[in-house]
Amino acid sequence: MKKTAFIDIGSNSFTLVICEYEEETNYRIIDVLKKSVRLGDMNKKGFLSDEKISLAIETLKMFKNLCVGSEVNDIKAVATEAVRKAKNQEEFLLEVKKETDIEITVLTGEMEAFYDYLGVMNTMDAKDGILMDIGGSSTEIVYIKNKKIKESVSLPFGAITITRDFDLKDKLTKKQEEDITEYVIKQLNSVKWMKSVKEPILIGVGGSIRNIGKIHRKRVNYMLNLEHNYKLGNEQVFEIFDLVKSKTFLQRKNVRGLSESRVDIIVGALTAVVATMKYFKTKDMLISGKGLRDGLIYERVLGSKIPMNNPLNFSINNILINNNLKINHANQIYQITKALYYFLEDISEFEDEKYDRILKSAAFLHDCGININYDKRKAHSAYLILNIDINGMNHNEIIQTALAIDAEENGDIKKKYFKYKKMLDKKDIENLKKLSILLRIAESLDRSATQSVKAVSCEILDDKFKVGVQSDRNIDFEIKDAMNYNDIFASIFKIEMEIYKI
Amino acid sequence: MKKTAFIDIGSNSFTLVICEYEEETNYRIIDVLKKSVRLGDMNKKGFLSDEKISLAIETLKMFKNLCVGSEVNDIKAVATEAVRKAKNQEEFLLEVKKETDIEITVLTGEMEAFYDYLGVMNTMDAKDGILMDIGGSSTEIVYIKNKKIKESVSLPFGAITITRDFDLKDKLTKKQEEDITEYVIKQLNSVKWMKSVKEPILIGVGGSIRNIGKIHRKRVNYMLNLEHNYKLGNEQVFEIFDLVKSKTFLQRKNVRGLSESRVDIIVGALTAVVATMKYFKTKDMLISGKGLRDGLIYERVLGSKIPMNNPLNFSINNILINNNLKINHANQIYQITKALYYFLEDISEFEDEKYDRILKSAAFLHDCGININYDKRKAHSAYLILNIDINGMNHNEIIQTALAIDAEENGDIKKKYFKYKKMLDKKDIENLKKLSILLRIAESLDRSATQSVKAVSCEILDDKFKVGVQSDRNIDFEIKDAMNYNDIFASIFKIEMEIYKI
Repeated sequence: MKKTAFIDIGSNSFTLVICEYEEETNYRIIDVLKKSVRLGDMNKKGFLSDEKISLAIETLKMFKNLCVGSEVNDIKAVATEAVRKAKNQEEFLLEVKKETDIEITVLTGEMEAFYDYLGVMNTMDAKDGILMDIGGSSTEIVYIKNKKIKESVSLPFGAITITRDFDLKDKLTKKQEEDITEYVIKQLNSVKWMKSVKEPILIGVGGSIRNIGKIHRKRVNYMLNLEHNYKLGNEQVFEIFDLVKSKTFLQRKNVRGLSESRVDIIVGALTAVVATMKYFKTKDMLISGKGLRDGLIYERVLGSKIPMNNPLNFSINNILINNNLKINHANQIYQITKALYYFLEDISEFEDEKYDRILKSAAFLHDCGININYDKRKAHSAYLILNIDINGMNHNEIIQTALAIDAEENGDIKKKYFKYKKMLDKKDIENLKKLSILLRIAESLDRSATQSVKAVSCEILDDKFKVGVQSDRNIDFEIKDAMNYNDIFASIFKIEMEIYKI
Repeated sequence: MKKTAFIDIGSNSFTLVICEYEEETNYRIIDVLKKSVRLGDMNKKGFLSDEKISLAIETLKMFKNLCVGSEVNDIKAVATEAVRKAKNQEEFLLEVKKETDIEITVLTGEMEAFYDYLGVMNTMDAKDGILMDIGGSSTEIVYIKNKKIKESVSLPFGAITITRDFDLKDKLTKKQEEDITEYVIKQLNSVKWMKSVKEPILIGVGGSIRNIGKIHRKRVNYMLNLEHNYKLGNEQVFEIFDLVKSKTFLQRKNVRGLSESRVDIIVGALTAVVATMKYFKTKDMLISGKGLRDGLIYERVLGSKIPMNNPLNFSINNILINNNLKINHANQIYQITKALYYFLEDISEFEDEKYDRILKSAAFLHDCGININYDKRKAHSAYLILNIDINGMNHNEIIQTALAIDAEENGDIKKKYFKYKKMLDKKDIENLKKLSILLRIAESLDRSATQSVKAVSCEILDDKFKVGVQSDRNIDFEIKDAMNYNDIFASIFKIEMEIYKI
């Protein structure tokens, strides 16, 4: 395993992430260290103050120490807007190099936007949209079309600078709100290509936006404990804005979910976000838990500046490896389940791609909880799926994946999942019933976990669904085990099943 | 990894368990297949009927098939009372060998009792007691003293034979209850050594007894989903007995937790258990989820017929390996936490051994949920601990281990654990506060996960708790990280802490 440390020297905070990885294959985060430095609080002349430089170096020494202790030699450190625009940048970089031996790469606005994009594209199932990363003193906006960067820009305002420049302290006055909005719109208007983007989905990146998501999740007692891929309608964002802007600094401290280190700057961030959403007329904001740092990680792990075609595939593989699970067996369950489902539905893939994703993740991760307890592995697998942050699936798909695995034998959703029912439509439930029984049949057909079935062929003959399984072994047991599900199968698919060896 | 299949040919059901293991180190169960055969239903002359023999062979062929498919060459098959006493035993064994090539070892009653004992002693923290395994047609009773078998016996009655011989069908009549009790007492009285055992704890083994536990857990909505180590007072067992014996066969089908395949024989089993508990004047029954099969597994994995000294150590190591965790780091956290705690409490070990066990398991498993999600690893570690079936700890200790890991920084038990509070006494809570803060200090001191701290020495000097840490590296970071807990430490231990490198 290789180890790399990624250091993100932001305008608000410094973050160190240490990863362990096999190139192109898998990785896991083994340490995270975050310190609020507020480097973006520059003096009026645009210089990093001696005080901030000392604090920055002290923090980086600490990071370096942890890297050395953790036997990490490869350190990738990047700085964004605060260092980018500091008039004493060169002096700062030399000082850091001298004191810590860390070489900082100062990202251009464009590079920063690029890494945001790379982090998001490798962890979300998104093709198009406007990515907005509001940081401490800059905001990156990327126009993504068909998974490619069509345009990108870094604008010189952020949560800290707005808070400082518009002197935000307690409740937001009407005047302040108007002034900030006017300022943000002016900034957006200064970028030609913006006008041509029509009602895009907004992909929100960065700590302030993640915090908006967290406040909302607390407000509605959201059922999943996941921040990545949380979706908010514009009305919901406006509601959070109204909640926060009408409170004094002290009152804001009691807003559930609002992180202590953002009590001061959240109002500035939200004003800019709301102005931007209104500018673009976006209807929804998809919150990304991933961003710049993940872009750096994926660049290193994958050795590529091009986003993966399929983040879900990588994510599933990563989960299987990190949790010491059998990949060949998982893949076999997927191949069999897919063959059966596609034949029965007479498709080569689902019209709605989400069902493809659910089938794939449920099949590959059908037993991911096996190391917790064999007998209760289905329930534990569902727990893992609901908590493990699978990339490339939205929350609804994650829930359906868990339900497909832990459904009752007849495809019914267990009582304990009742709370998720309202998130599912009729078609979802129909699909879950079918998928869960086919998963069990596939599990029976690779019960030995040794891939004894080499191929599966399906046909409808004499009013029966006939499954020929090819194998160079005796697979009477596997067939009999699978045939135990015939009654349930027939009740769901309205046809009898027959499995035989060819 | 080696693979072995264990086949248990019982009087009630046949069970196949396939294990993957490294000798003397770790194992995991990768498949379980169970079929109700009811071999104990012999004809009056004591012969296994042709029908039963066919069913047995069909089942064993299925097991064998799964073994072959799973690439398991090593099959260990044992049979108990039904085969032991069958007059056509030899014919049965030959037939099985011919049809399936499986060699069955017919266990003597003594050997059966021994494997029960080995399974229990390797998975429970128990030194003394009466082990009772009520099977389909025999009951093993083992008198354990200081972890050794002092006496053991196999008695020729079980859940199936009692049900048949006393013609149990619907509600249990007073006459039937008296007859069975008299019969069981007579059997017990026939064993000389029994009389000398005074009020032992009863360790209950076997499917019927596990089912009693399950019924009770459902009745009280028990907070843990663990069957092994569940403790019932005699009044609680009697209560389940009253509940079950007063119902008709059909009514019993609705008893929550009562397994479908035991609706008929549970009354017989319970009558015998209650009679035995009364005979011994036991106050508590500790239900073992492990027994004969686990004895066979441990004999093979450990290569020993002597129980481990410390099941907890093995179990922790097993969890670390199966879940792809760092053992050296886990051990380091244990060593440091222990050094600090023992010095502060001025002990070499706790008077109450449970606190030793909690400290050890919490330290070793402090990050076992890290592969689920790094940021929420503490909560996920707690989930794993509450569900993973750690051997050698009782449920109270398991809960405390989870709480120590997932406690708030100030040692408070999180709101979500409120439900467990009633299970803890003042001393437990006191201990949790101390343990949780020391765990965090230890984690800081091995934050790099590379064991840079070589030794820790403690002293009280100038009204301070001084911790000297020895290292051949710069460990400023680790020390500073640990010192972040000084305020909380001081509020709990009423003394300031100072950590320095020596």
